[in-house]
Amino acid sequence: MSEEKANVELLPGERVDDLQRKGYRIIQRPGSFCFGIDAVFLCGFANVRPGESVLDLGTGTGILPILLEARSKGAHFTGIELQPESADMARRSVALNGLGDRIDIVEGDLREAGGLFLPASFHVVTANPPYMKDGGGLLNPGLPKAMARHEITCTLGDVTRAAAKFLRPGGRFYMVHRPFRLTEIVCELVKCGLEPKRMRFVHPFADREPGMVLIESRKGGSSRLTVEKPLIIYESPGKYTEEVRRDYHF
Amino acid sequence: MSEEKANVELLPGERVDDLQRKGYRIIQRPGSFCFGIDAVFLCGFANVRPGESVLDLGTGTGILPILLEARSKGAHFTGIELQPESADMARRSVALNGLGDRIDIVEGDLREAGGLFLPASFHVVTANPPYMKDGGGLLNPGLPKAMARHEITCTLGDVTRAAAKFLRPGGRFYMVHRPFRLTEIVCELVKCGLEPKRMRFVHPFADREPGMVLIESRKGGSSRLTVEKPLIIYESPGKYTEEVRRDYHF
Repeated sequence: MSEEKANVELLPGERVDDLQRKGYRIIQRPGSFCFGIDAVFLCGFANVRPGESVLDLGTGTGILPILLEARSKGAHFTGIELQPESADMARRSVALNGLGDRIDIVEGDLREAGGLFLPASFHVVTANPPYMKDGGGLLNPGLPKAMARHEITCTLGDVTRAAAKFLRPGGRFYMVHRPFRLTEIVCELVKCGLEPKRMRFVHPFADREPGMVLIESRKGGSSRLTVEKPLIIYESPGKYTEEVRRDYHF
Repeated sequence: MSEEKANVELLPGERVDDLQRKGYRIIQRPGSFCFGIDAVFLCGFANVRPGESVLDLGTGTGILPILLEARSKGAHFTGIELQPESADMARRSVALNGLGDRIDIVEGDLREAGGLFLPASFHVVTANPPYMKDGGGLLNPGLPKAMARHEITCTLGDVTRAAAKFLRPGGRFYMVHRPFRLTEIVCELVKCGLEPKRMRFVHPFADREPGMVLIESRKGGSSRLTVEKPLIIYESPGKYTEEVRRDYHF
């Protein structure tokens, strides 16, 4: 493992950050390829059981498979990523942590992933998809940051359809998104046969609107949802709540 | 008005309760015809603007029209109620408060209300519908309490269809319901052309799951939802939060 770690090269502009879990590190490029706290909350919300297989849609820097590998006993993790530079960074981060036998990074389009994966073959699917409806007004819609934030190369429906396709019956889909799109999210999930089962809103402060929503859906589940207690990030300005410090290592 | 008030008779088992707003009172019958805190929260969540007309679906004791009349400058309020005893109690409460020219209580079935009201004729529709999916296991599904709590005489879809039918374009529908049915609620609303615009979860305590959800939808609105900060009822056991004391007169 240490030999493998030694072979990883950094490209100009890249840096290595400590993930504070099992000594794992991740390669990022400030300004274009960085993970957000959304991924950290999604990781904490997702339940991966021992022996399960996990697919992360639009994995970016590979943050979700790496964090999930650190905190679960899942058997195998796969990340699919459309952007070649991101996929390459994710692959090097996997190597950096000596996780080549546990995590696969696949370069490909989740809209056309039928040739890459067998249908109904994963226990768990995760996604931290672009939040903004389109990139019509963007100057550089081809930039990685724009593609990660705006639905330029994949819509909400593309993500839910892919999740439904690759999940086994009864499998779970974990997604983080913005509350302002909750109606569409619920409708797209149900349309694909993914039934929302757990939902948690993430609020910056206890008396503020939520900035994120975490949703667990089940393929073929019955219609009964648990909305959990709010997840509050800050107790006071600059001071994280105990839950966030304890469970998310902030 | 005082003469009208004097004419109201109470039936056996009924009592008169003070609503602590404008001196208004309401007739209730403990055990079968009583309003819940859900109605009080819905009333606080609903915005009725000056001059607007309001229809309350399944008005029960008439609590919502009476409370909304007290706290808004709406022009006119109508409550439709299927159960003759409830409708009669609501009518007597309206008379008790001298509100006969401001509030109409109509006995009728909201599923067949086409002959009672003109389509697209109300600015605002409100509903505190039965929460439980069916009354299949109930011993006495015909009892008023059972009908108010279980979808025996009206389903969620019946309520949303009636709201959509009687609302003017751009009109607002305010509903209180249980979070565990949120997926169905969102799907039924969207199916009827009612777009969720505001949502607020009501939690007994800050660190507990919500027990209620308040939803404002707009007829023909665009898809963009605001999830508001949580509404917390108790600061500590037995002690209401400041917001609930200030805004809801608890």
